[in-house]
Amino acid sequence: MKALRLHTYTQQPRLEDVAEPAVRGPHDVVVRVGGAGLCRTDLHIRDGWFAPAVPTELPITLGHENTGWVHEIGPEVENVAVGDAVICHPQLSCGNCPACRIGDDMRCARGLRFSGLTRDGGFAELLATTDRAVLPLPAGLAPADVAPHADAGLTVIHVVRKALPLLGPGTRAVVIGVGGLGHIAVQCLRALTAAEIIAVDRDPDALKLAGGCGAHHVVAADGREADHVRDLTGGAGAEAVLDFVGEGDAPAAALGMVRPRGTYFVVGYGGELRVPTFAVVLPEISIVGNAVGTHDDLRELVALAATGAVQVHTRTYPLDAFADAMADLEQGRMHGRGVLVP
Amino acid sequence: MKALRLHTYTQQPRLEDVAEPAVRGPHDVVVRVGGAGLCRTDLHIRDGWFAPAVPTELPITLGHENTGWVHEIGPEVENVAVGDAVICHPQLSCGNCPACRIGDDMRCARGLRFSGLTRDGGFAELLATTDRAVLPLPAGLAPADVAPHADAGLTVIHVVRKALPLLGPGTRAVVIGVGGLGHIAVQCLRALTAAEIIAVDRDPDALKLAGGCGAHHVVAADGREADHVRDLTGGAGAEAVLDFVGEGDAPAAALGMVRPRGTYFVVGYGGELRVPTFAVVLPEISIVGNAVGTHDDLRELVALAATGAVQVHTRTYPLDAFADAMADLEQGRMHGRGVLVP
Amino acid sequence: MKALRLHTYTQQPRLEDVAEPAVRGPHDVVVRVGGAGLCRTDLHIRDGWFAPAVPTELPITLGHENTGWVHEIGPEVENVAVGDAVICHPQLSCGNCPACRIGDDMRCARGLRFSGLTRDGGFAELLATTDRAVLPLPAGLAPADVAPHADAGLTVIHVVRKALPLLGPGTRAVVIGVGGLGHIAVQCLRALTAAEIIAVDRDPDALKLAGGCGAHHVVAADGREADHVRDLTGGAGAEAVLDFVGEGDAPAAALGMVRPRGTYFVVGYGGELRVPTFAVVLPEISIVGNAVGTHDDLRELVALAATGAVQVHTRTYPLDAFADAMADLEQGRMHGRGVLVP
Amino acid sequence: MKALRLHTYTQQPRLEDVAEPAVRGPHDVVVRVGGAGLCRTDLHIRDGWFAPAVPTELPITLGHENTGWVHEIGPEVENVAVGDAVICHPQLSCGNCPACRIGDDMRCARGLRFSGLTRDGGFAELLATTDRAVLPLPAGLAPADVAPHADAGLTVIHVVRKALPLLGPGTRAVVIGVGGLGHIAVQCLRALTAAEIIAVDRDPDALKLAGGCGAHHVVAADGREADHVRDLTGGAGAEAVLDFVGEGDAPAAALGMVRPRGTYFVVGYGGELRVPTFAVVLPEISIVGNAVGTHDDLRELVALAATGAVQVHTRTYPLDAFADAMADLEQGRMHGRGVLVP
Repeated sequence: MKALRLHTYTQQPRLEDVAEPAVRGPHDVVVRVGGAGLCRTDLHIRDGWFAPAVPTELPITLGHENTGWVHEIGPEVENVAVGDAVICHPQLSCGNCPACRIGDDMRCARGLRFSGLTRDGGFAELLATTDRAVLPLPAGLAPADVAPHADAGLTVIHVVRKALPLLGPGTRAVVIGVGGLGHIAVQCLRALTAAEIIAVDRDPDALKLAGGCGAHHVVAADGREADHVRDLTGGAGAEAVLDFVGEGDAPAAALGMVRPRGTYFVVGYGGELRVPTFAVVLPEISIVGNAVGTHDDLRELVALAATGAVQVHTRTYPLDAFADAMADLEQGRMHGRGVLVP
Repeated sequence: MKALRLHTYTQQPRLEDVAEPAVRGPHDVVVRVGGAGLCRTDLHIRDGWFAPAVPTELPITLGHENTGWVHEIGPEVENVAVGDAVICHPQLSCGNCPACRIGDDMRCARGLRFSGLTRDGGFAELLATTDRAVLPLPAGLAPADVAPHADAGLTVIHVVRKALPLLGPGTRAVVIGVGGLGHIAVQCLRALTAAEIIAVDRDPDALKLAGGCGAHHVVAADGREADHVRDLTGGAGAEAVLDFVGEGDAPAAALGMVRPRGTYFVVGYGGELRVPTFAVVLPEISIVGNAVGTHDDLRELVALAATGAVQVHTRTYPLDAFADAMADLEQGRMHGRGVLVP
Repeated sequence: MKALRLHTYTQQPRLEDVAEPAVRGPHDVVVRVGGAGLCRTDLHIRDGWFAPAVPTELPITLGHENTGWVHEIGPEVENVAVGDAVICHPQLSCGNCPACRIGDDMRCARGLRFSGLTRDGGFAELLATTDRAVLPLPAGLAPADVAPHADAGLTVIHVVRKALPLLGPGTRAVVIGVGGLGHIAVQCLRALTAAEIIAVDRDPDALKLAGGCGAHHVVAADGREADHVRDLTGGAGAEAVLDFVGEGDAPAAALGMVRPRGTYFVVGYGGELRVPTFAVVLPEISIVGNAVGTHDDLRELVALAATGAVQVHTRTYPLDAFADAMADLEQGRMHGRGVLVP
Repeated sequence: MKALRLHTYTQQPRLEDVAEPAVRGPHDVVVRVGGAGLCRTDLHIRDGWFAPAVPTELPITLGHENTGWVHEIGPEVENVAVGDAVICHPQLSCGNCPACRIGDDMRCARGLRFSGLTRDGGFAELLATTDRAVLPLPAGLAPADVAPHADAGLTVIHVVRKALPLLGPGTRAVVIGVGGLGHIAVQCLRALTAAEIIAVDRDPDALKLAGGCGAHHVVAADGREADHVRDLTGGAGAEAVLDFVGEGDAPAAALGMVRPRGTYFVVGYGGELRVPTFAVVLPEISIVGNAVGTHDDLRELVALAATGAVQVHTRTYPLDAFADAMADLEQGRMHGRGVLVP
């Protein structure tokens, strides 16, 4: 089958022919890929960003936002049948360690086993995964349309669920970065809270997308975005700031927007957080890291998407046009999320 | 009456005679001071540390950890009577703004009105405060013995209450800095959780105090304390790290001790927090700022102290020996908390 | 001034001339009534229902759902000025007991001081209350339109806030009884959750109102309503059942609709709850009582109402038509809420 | 092997020879029984109490509180090895349904698969279970000593964890019924809270046991126990009432002891709950059902037991003395918990 494989860090992955995966263990599931979202993390993996923290033997097939149809199952698989449309959680969890027993799939004691990062992913015709990492899709959701929910959407619902207790009527939520994750975040916040939503981005097209997704206010990230947000919030700042950028000026701006007793949710991760302890202690600010989400988060997101309340803005590319897709993402031409379709 | 007043930042305060405070408003309370705890924050105030963030007109009487007996009350005061032993919350809150209506006294819309920082404090014979800022002491607690609970203990119970949901049986809590606050924290954690407690300090006498207060392990802050803590926690780190230092190497060490999904509670505030967003995002660490506490926290702490489960190690000084007390604190000779008695 | 006063239990109240209230204490507020909602509780009070539990000296002016404009204030009042449009929390809380210090106004240590129940209420031209019991209304909300929010809406937002953590995407909420409270509940659930909403009532007009307010399903209370709800929820029952009837068959039906680990929120209160402990223990059901709400609940409801997301269906009556209003309510002709306008 | 099997409801089970269980599925675990606690539920099962709610084909081997050593494992078992000392959760959960994915093992979509109730239990030499239902015991805990933790202790830690947020310093917890569960509850409450503990039982020996376990007050269940508890709590009642009886007068007494905004945790299950909705609504009382616990609860309890803070008072009987054990339990001669040792 065709698969897009990374052979050397910092070099472009190559589309090539590889052997098809097959069921080996009793809980294995092989999925025929229907769509695989392209994520900024794919660029980071390509560029070797994760190599020190997550050592991986190359080559590897990229792609961690996968949907499709069940192609083959092992003898102990009970939750899906061949032919079922499914969305794939990127992490393969063991199910029986202390973390798994409370639903914290990402902290599985067997460590990160993550499609497209530590094992072959979904930029291919078939994907090998397990029963615990697949969730049936309801009839109304087509695999290629919702592939980005497998990681972009999953991360968003994960952080939004954490933010919900802060976001009663009369509060404000800021979304920094209205890209693949941010435009889903605006929709989730609209669907699940009565908070006023302020979207921040440097790109006017992204702000337009934010408005279309339901943001009440849009603010240009012009270096004075913290001031603008404070003005919109009566000087006090927002109860919750969700930062999907996490690099450059974003962390400092985010801290400048959060009100006393508020929370800065960090999701984007390329930069540095630097702040006097005094500025965290006195106003009792919280800074909360967020990555991916749990299987239960994915279940909840699929339920929400099934109501029509949250839609991913996608642009599809054939698998062999991967280079175009990566260039569009890298050069800021992607609004919403790119999806590779094999 | 005698009062210890700060006239110029960076210079030592002076003991001098000033007019006695009197009741002016219907909710006013004047307290005859029984004891006033000396806090590192007093040194910071003296040194002008707070001047930019909390502008205050000098001279001011220092002292924000006050206990004593009610001396005079205004006509609307109902919760205390003349002669009652009381502990004084340092913040005067209005009671009717949105923050006060949910018990968040420190975020009162009228701003910081803080004894010994923005208004005259308790290093004096009498202290002017209000009904909302006094809490009766039960019979067994002598004012001079528990004065540090008015801020040191209050801050501790505030942060410990936030940490409790993380600290079930089988978990680990780290206390960094076993001084005035830290030695109370060890006791509160012992009384309120079944967590294993690891105390970290550079001073062997402080570690001895920690052991006496109930710490299960003590670790020297020798530059490798994060490694030691990780060794004591099976390599993973602790569920909660309570940092009462907040300067120098402490924030970096604290971040090195906290396990994935764990929380770093910052209480000390002189230094800088500097960390790649990646290191917060991937393991989903939280960083939570803490300052002072609510009136309800103080009520709960007094209830706990009344059971004998938490005791402040104090060393008393007459008010006119304030310079000795400040020198002992500044030069690391104070274990537990100094209390000035007028 | 004119006031509607109850002289004898079980007899109709009388409209009569009484002396105008005036400011006496420093925190007093006198409000010129703009609207006063009529509640089933008013009928219960008239009929002596509350007399054993809440002893009150008659005569008393009824009316606990009050809005209007500030007419006079005491010298210590800071949160409102004469002329401000306000909504009145029915309970006068002290602000300084342990319950008040955490915002639990209804558990104030000074006991129930409740307009229209233990003290004169708002079926009159003027209402005497205090600064802690008034909240300014934003420009877009006219007093007569939102009077029922002072108790009906307040009770609803209070119970809905408790239910929110149970009502993620994919869950179901049942509203039993679509009257003055229930029709607000349907709207609050729509605005604050993505749950599927099932409204239950015996009256077809009430079910029509529920549909207009956003219920996804309506179910006739025909004696088999628990079965119908189970059918709509795949046999399992609903995560949250909000019962605004609380008498007759409603409690048994509610318990028959709640799924394992679900919660039955009891709000209506005329009947009896009778269930084997086995039926509560094995499925781990919770039964949660709800009455009125806090000042913070009222603040949040007003913020929500200001967005237009929640609207009370009202029918206004002049104060001297009170007998018609009471008859309409008693005989089931009132859909939404009646409001008396002096 | 020998097994104690129930052939007919209402008749005594019989000790007989049956075939040994063996591993059949990849996740199977066979445990050599070290101890099996005897529970009042065993009497209820024998008497046919559960037959309508939980239909089971007889004969069945009783015993749902099991510990021992791993005897044989299936090929996919990773969490235990042959020879390991283990404690057995009574419920066999699937691990992949929505309930299991958030750790709610008892609500597994495959239904109740409960050792000693719906499948053969541990009153036998060997027990067949699965990897998800076994937890290794640390070195210091001998299987026969801690067998009751598998259900009695598990149920206790489950309800105590729910009660913890209510039980800060200055609060009161009532334990009704100081038998197999209640005496563990007193210890868990001592270890995990600073609440004042009031134990209630009709049997003076049980109250003596409660005192030895750390109860601050003991109250005879003499028909006026609600009054006694109210007297001990300043008239208000307790924040949390944990009722391990759940039959006879206990539910009414429990409701008479719980303060406004407090919670009545129902654990015992033989009787009826009967209360006017008014009495639940006005004081906003909660009634919370509790049964068994999760795997994570068991993990936490074992961690707590390993510290020595919680010890089961046991009396061991050889398996063939089961009739004596059942008679001792039935006739109130058992204080603490009986354990059958094969």
